[in-house]
This record gives sequence, C-alpha cells and structure tokens, in this order.
Amino acid sequence: MAFVIRNIRVVWLAIVLLASCSHGNAFAQSDPLPSWNDGAARKAITDFVARVTTQGGADFVPPAERIATFDNDGTLWTEQPVYFQLAFAIDRVKAMAPQHPDWKARQPFNALLERNPKALAATGEKGLLQIVAATHAGMTTDAFANSVRDWLATSRHPRFNRPYDSLVYQPMLELLAFLRANGFKTFVVSGGGVEFMRPWMERVYGIPPEQVVGSSGIVKFQIGVDGKPTLMKQAKLEFVDDGPGKPVGINRFIGRRPILAFGNSDGDLEMLQWTAAGSGLRLAGIVHHTDAEREYAYDRQSKIGRLDKALDAAAAGGWIVVDMKRDWKEVFPPPMTAGAKGTKP
Amino acid sequence: MAFVIRNIRVVWLAIVLLASCSHGNAFAQSDPLPSWNDGAARKAITDFVARVTTQGGADFVPPAERIATFDNDGTLWTEQPVYFQLAFAIDRVKAMAPQHPDWKARQPFNALLERNPKALAATGEKGLLQIVAATHAGMTTDAFANSVRDWLATSRHPRFNRPYDSLVYQPMLELLAFLRANGFKTFVVSGGGVEFMRPWMERVYGIPPEQVVGSSGIVKFQIGVDGKPTLMKQAKLEFVDDGPGKPVGINRFIGRRPILAFGNSDGDLEMLQWTAAGSGLRLAGIVHHTDAEREYAYDRQSKIGRLDKALDAAAAGGWIVVDMKRDWKEVFPPPMTAGAKGTKP
Repeated sequence: MAFVIRNIRVVWLAIVLLASCSHGNAFAQSDPLPSWNDGAARKAITDFVARVTTQGGADFVPPAERIATFDNDGTLWTEQPVYFQLAFAIDRVKAMAPQHPDWKARQPFNALLERNPKALAATGEKGLLQIVAATHAGMTTDAFANSVRDWLATSRHPRFNRPYDSLVYQPMLELLAFLRANGFKTFVVSGGGVEFMRPWMERVYGIPPEQVVGSSGIVKFQIGVDGKPTLMKQAKLEFVDDGPGKPVGINRFIGRRPILAFGNSDGDLEMLQWTAAGSGLRLAGIVHHTDAEREYAYDRQSKIGRLDKALDAAAAGGWIVVDMKRDWKEVFPPPMTAGAKGTKP
Repeated sequence: MAFVIRNIRVVWLAIVLLASCSHGNAFAQSDPLPSWNDGAARKAITDFVARVTTQGGADFVPPAERIATFDNDGTLWTEQPVYFQLAFAIDRVKAMAPQHPDWKARQPFNALLERNPKALAATGEKGLLQIVAATHAGMTTDAFANSVRDWLATSRHPRFNRPYDSLVYQPMLELLAFLRANGFKTFVVSGGGVEFMRPWMERVYGIPPEQVVGSSGIVKFQIGVDGKPTLMKQAKLEFVDDGPGKPVGINRFIGRRPILAFGNSDGDLEMLQWTAAGSGLRLAGIVHHTDAEREYAYDRQSKIGRLDKALDAAAAGGWIVVDMKRDWKEVFPPPMTAGAKGTKP
C-alpha cells in the first residue's frame, strides 16, 4: 500500500511538472477573454487564433510570423476629449509658463493658457509645432521620458478623475495577453509620439519599447562638455506614423506584414488594408466607440478619431467591428489596478 | 518488485519532464563558445554574461533590459574586398544592363560595367546614388527582397568561392546564440540597407526582421490598379545608420540603451560610446581583423571598415578587442552548413 501511495504521489508530481512547463495552454485556462461578451467579435478572434496556431492546419502560421499590430489612441486607451499626448503638452506649457513670461503675449501659448480654442485653432499647424517644440524638444531623450512619467503619475483625466494610463481598455489588455500566450508578438503602431509612449507601455500593456512604433522627431547624438554622450530631442518632425505612414512604419520598424491588426479610426485604414491584403488568413479589426455612458460614442463626425472611410472598408472587407457597448462587459480595469499600477494614488 | 519498477519508471519520467522544461540551461551545456580560444576576450564575455544574469548579484540586469547590438559588415560577416551590398549592386547592374543599352555610354554605369574603379570613383556620391536608385528602387519591397535572395543563392565571393551568406563568423554566431540562451535580445545595427539585410538574417543569424536596424530609403504606400496595396521603394535616402546615426537608430528602433555592443570600425564608435556610457555593467567589443590568412588583416589605413579612432577609444575605455587571429579557433562555418544553409549549392 505504501508503494501505491508513493506511486500516486510521483504520478501527481509528473502531472504538475507537465502542466507547469506546457506552452500555448491558453485554451486550458478558464477564459482568456473574460471581459468580452459572447458574440461575433469574440468568436472571430478566438476562431482566428485557433486556426493560425493549429499545427498541420491549412491556416497555420509559424510563431515568428505571428505579428499583431495595434493602434493606441482610441484602440488601447481613450482619446477623448483630446488625445492624451495633447493634454500632456497643455499641462507642460502650464507648468513651464512661469519660466516663460513672454508666453502670455505670444501665440499659440496665450491661447492655450487662456483656454481659447478658437485662437488656438487659428495658429494652425505652425502653432501646434511650436507647442511640440516647447514641450517635446530641447532636452535629452531621458529627461523627456521622465517628464512623461511624472505627468502620468500626477495628472488626472477631466471626466473620469483617474490617471490617464488607467483609462486603457480591459478587453484589449486581455486580447494582447491572449495573443502573446498563443505565440504572437504584439506591437503598437500609433500616430502618437514614440518617445511619449515607450516610457509606460511595457508596464501597462506588457509591450517593450522595441515593439512600439510611432511618430518621431529628429534626435541628435552629442558628446557633452562632461565627455558623456547624450541624445538630444530636436524641434523637427521626422516621421508621421499615421494613415499611409502606418504600413510604411510597419515596414520600417517590423519588416514583416502583420497577420492581425486593430485600429479605430480612418488613420488606421491603410494599416488595416495592408494587413488584410496579405496572403493567408488575416484579421483586421476596428474598435467602434458606441458607449457614451461608460466611455464615448463617436464615429463619422468626430474631429478626434474620425471613423468614416475605415467603417465602410470594414463592411466591404468583412473586417471585425467591435461594438464597445455590446461586445465589452467592462471598459476599463477597476481603479488602482492594471493600468493604474505603479502610478501615484 | 513490479511496484518498484513502475515507481522507478515514473520517477524517470518526472526527471525527463523536469529537464525538458528547464530554462537558462546554457551553463549546463558543454561549451557554448567552442570556436573561441581561451583568452581575455572570451573570459570578458563569459564573465559579463555571468554577472548580468546572476539573480541577486550587484550587476543583475532583468531580461527585458538585456539588449545586445551588433554591427554587421566586418562584425558578423566579411566586408572585403568590398561591402557585400556593393557587390550585390554591381551584379544587379550587370544583370540589368541588357535591358538598359544606354548604360554603356552613361556614368556611373559604364565605369562599373567596364570595371574602371577610377572613373567610378570620379562619379562620387552622385554616382553611388544613381547605382542605388537603379538597383534598390522603383520596385516593391517584396520584389527587392526576392532579388536579394536570388543573388545570395547564385553569387559567390571572389576569393573564397562560397555564397556570401556563408562568410559569417562562426565565433560570432556562437556568441549570438550564447547571449540569447541567457535571455538577451540580439539586434543588428548596421550601416547596410535594412531591406538588404532582413531577407536572410533570420535564417543565418537567428535574428528576426524586427530586430534588424539599418539604413533605409523612402518607401511609399500605394494602392495598385488591381486595388491591392503595395510598398514601393523610392530612390531617395531616408536614414543613414552609421557613425552618430547608430545611437540615433538604436533610440528610434529599440528605444532602450544596449548593455552589450560589438562593432569593428570607426562607424561603430558612437554606438560603442553610447553603450559603454550607460549606468551599470556594460560590455563594448571590437572585432579586430588581424588574420590575412584565414580572412583579412586591416585597421587604421583601410578604406573599407577603417578602425582607427575606435581602436584608440577601446584602449582608453577598456573595451574588449577581439584579435581574430589569436582569439578565434575557426573563422567561418564549414562550407554548406550554417550560413550556407538554404542557398543553392
């Protein structure tokens, strides 16, 4: 009897070991997408993942080619009432204003400090570039990353009164984790500034800096007076990772066509077209903001995150359209967990 | 007795399972760097890796931050008698010449076809850009990748009479694998064209396209007459990933400072400075070409891969200088294995 008991124990040990070292066990877990309601969107995602990961199946894709790209603003986190990077720039101008008394009489700074959207809009692209130059340049890449981290730790969203990096979509966090558990490499491909995104995306999305593609300004290598090399951010735009810039950015940074891509606006149209046009099974998805109560509702008429042409393309191309209100059980993680983790209370 | 035997079998099963799922077992293997002679360079590498991977040690670096960057030409593969990408361009011009009868009377093409280095040099940068435009642009990124693969499969190095992608350094292949087995993420950061490198580096170095950083030309997104999107290579340089461009490229593509970098020429100086200047333990290394018999011997006077300032910086900064003749047991993999794998015989 002692032998039998010992035998059972050893078998149990073997089972535990087997379980602990098995890979691709997402399907063995309870539910990898608990915040997704049952429906067409969820089913399309899980079917797609099952098909491309089934060894020997007609749609099998080797892990190295399982590239998934996600827009950020409006796809992984909220983009209303203004892009969060613009909120950052506005807060930076306010914080820096005491050191720049001349800004009171100068546009676009006066318009911004006096909350005069009409005057701000009148300064146009030139005004926007001046704000970017004042808040995003003339410092090292390290100093800029720190200013982003400080802002995330101290600022709050005007409507939700939560840190900006906690206003990330819980269902999309689950989708990112689900894809990675199935051998995908997840990338952000955003019109936002790459230096603005990298300091927090690893913590919040589990996406390391080298998998973040975005717009960028010129950066210059300099040897300082102390003999130490630095990288200085210049007030000159280098690359706009939006619209047709997205497939170009994907080619430049990733060098491989995604098999899955998610966006939420017309700025993502070309990325979705490029993804969908690849040979073999592909998934192109759109997050449709339909939930004014829990988040925001906007599409064809919105100035921020307009979704018009891409919504037509989705219908024509059979892309997935995620209806936020219908498809998502939860929108944001509970306060003070997930995205909020690591920021000050 | 039957119980005992069954018991032993199950224990054995448990041991096999445990062994098959253990990670980071590089040190348990015989010798991860068999082509490296015992010496200062080898010891510096293995000591460094041991220190940054020792959990709880003063120099421990989390896996996500174990970024290693390698120059390509002269660091991972041969760069003499001319950069292999130039050999590719020359071969392409020759292959395309029948379709371009005007080239016979036009520079730089005439100089190139007539093997007239003096006349070719006289066309200067403008001539070089015309060659690049003719051979690297006006086609889709996919078509260009295919032309690179075809060339590698059919061309031979003039001295070694081997495929170019078999003239990779066996000790460096071992170093790449050793680093990856220890949780490093290995990147190429090269002055070579990124579209020229990506089609073969995954097969030869085990480095996927998204971990290849290089110089690039403008690429344009277009919807073809068939409604299909394509990326067209334009005849315009966009980014030169050389000299001070290397830390800039590292910042742009990787977004994190390497803890280890290897180069072989003055074009790598700034990458090595940027790496060495980071806080914590860092390793900067140089491959010194000292072996005219097995490969080539050149440094301060060479027109290709000049190593002058970086050699002084290595001495001043205590960087590793790998002496090819002294430190490497083998230079290239045996013919028809490793790098040659997948190319036609």
